[in-house]
Amino acid sequence: MKRLLVIGIGAGNPDYITMQAVKALNQVDVFFLMDKGPSKDKLIDLRRDICARYITDPAYRFVESHSPERARGDVDYTRAVDDLNRAKQETFEQLINEELADEQCGGFLVWGDPALYDSTVRILQAILASGRCAFEFEVIPGITSVQALAAQHKVPLNSIGRSIEITTGRRLAAGQVSDTDSLVVMLDAEDSYHHVADQQTEIYWGAYLGTPDEILISGKLKDVAAEIERVRKAARAEHGWIMDTYLLRKP
Amino acid sequence: MKRLLVIGIGAGNPDYITMQAVKALNQVDVFFLMDKGPSKDKLIDLRRDICARYITDPAYRFVESHSPERARGDVDYTRAVDDLNRAKQETFEQLINEELADEQCGGFLVWGDPALYDSTVRILQAILASGRCAFEFEVIPGITSVQALAAQHKVPLNSIGRSIEITTGRRLAAGQVSDTDSLVVMLDAEDSYHHVADQQTEIYWGAYLGTPDEILISGKLKDVAAEIERVRKAARAEHGWIMDTYLLRKP
Repeated sequence: MKRLLVIGIGAGNPDYITMQAVKALNQVDVFFLMDKGPSKDKLIDLRRDICARYITDPAYRFVESHSPERARGDVDYTRAVDDLNRAKQETFEQLINEELADEQCGGFLVWGDPALYDSTVRILQAILASGRCAFEFEVIPGITSVQALAAQHKVPLNSIGRSIEITTGRRLAAGQVSDTDSLVVMLDAEDSYHHVADQQTEIYWGAYLGTPDEILISGKLKDVAAEIERVRKAARAEHGWIMDTYLLRKP
Repeated sequence: MKRLLVIGIGAGNPDYITMQAVKALNQVDVFFLMDKGPSKDKLIDLRRDICARYITDPAYRFVESHSPERARGDVDYTRAVDDLNRAKQETFEQLINEELADEQCGGFLVWGDPALYDSTVRILQAILASGRCAFEFEVIPGITSVQALAAQHKVPLNSIGRSIEITTGRRLAAGQVSDTDSLVVMLDAEDSYHHVADQQTEIYWGAYLGTPDEILISGKLKDVAAEIERVRKAARAEHGWIMDTYLLRKP
């Protein structure tokens, strides 16, 4: 039987890796690298660094694959993601069939935690359900950018006895969020914090969390929203990409 | 200056510990152990095990402290938690003043992640704000039971492009949750999943996650709710305590 490990490698700081992930890395024969977009080279380098740092026997290899990209612009979002996931599923099936021998172990290195806004687990479950490919797989959790954000700002994610909502910039911009007092926003490409009406809301914002390029800004929206927009734009221009996350806490 | 490290040690599995946490453990002179309730002995043993396993120079010591307990029964919940946190704040101040010399490093070992339903960070910030005690502190994130749950069930926490709400059993029972399709429930002492109306909802339930005693049950509520209640009750009776978490996903 082929075996796959979906390994959360944490968000940014190579020290965020867990002992469980280190043990998992050392079982992998073939790593599948699926990054895309402007951050591709940087992210692939980080994955190679992590392998070099933590794997004791260098008898592993990397397979880089062209990762399908989502259709953008005036398209239905859920449908575009569905189409993308079907294309990814075909790519994954091909990798597992062609690059992995029986009894070998394949590894997917997932930024953050595989359970949070990552499609690897969903795609592997879909492949298993289709019956077109047989394998066992395990999931290894990792520290997410949400946790890095809270740790670096030294704040709890929740208020006492209250809920936390984790959502996307797209949903915040569309008003599709609940009235929770602690809202965590990920994957925000468009400064959606400008859509928050109550300017007394505290924002804890972080970019490139856990890396040497980390930027942290916090304060009331009325005081820091313009600064975050300016800093974010400049950082994106400087690095060619940005990965940022924030917590919004109602007064 | 005194230094404090609030170290997330992950949920259950000693392999959930991160490299960052291991480095932090090795800087600590005095560990403050604050556990309480029926799980106290077990949790303190696990902390001692983690220190013994990962600390190279055994020149550290433990200080066990009586942890104040929250008033239960017919009391206002937020007020009871406020009172508890004030009592904890006094305990923490005393520990920092009396047990830690200048230039020494104190460590709090937090189950899971310090940012999620844990009061240590909030209390330290309150002490700093009061000015009654001076120190620097850092927070080290850890793998939460929510992440362990998703990894062990091999499911994503979110549906495609949707939000996740993390909440308490108390709020679910009181109907104080949003209509999100992915609801994670922690700290549920009373089988609050029985309050979910739609019996087609999938539940992914886990107890003692990451430990050798781990129990996992999943399925539609109509099929598994009674089984979870039965298994939960039996496990609690057997171990004297239970720590469980679950994900509810709407159909």
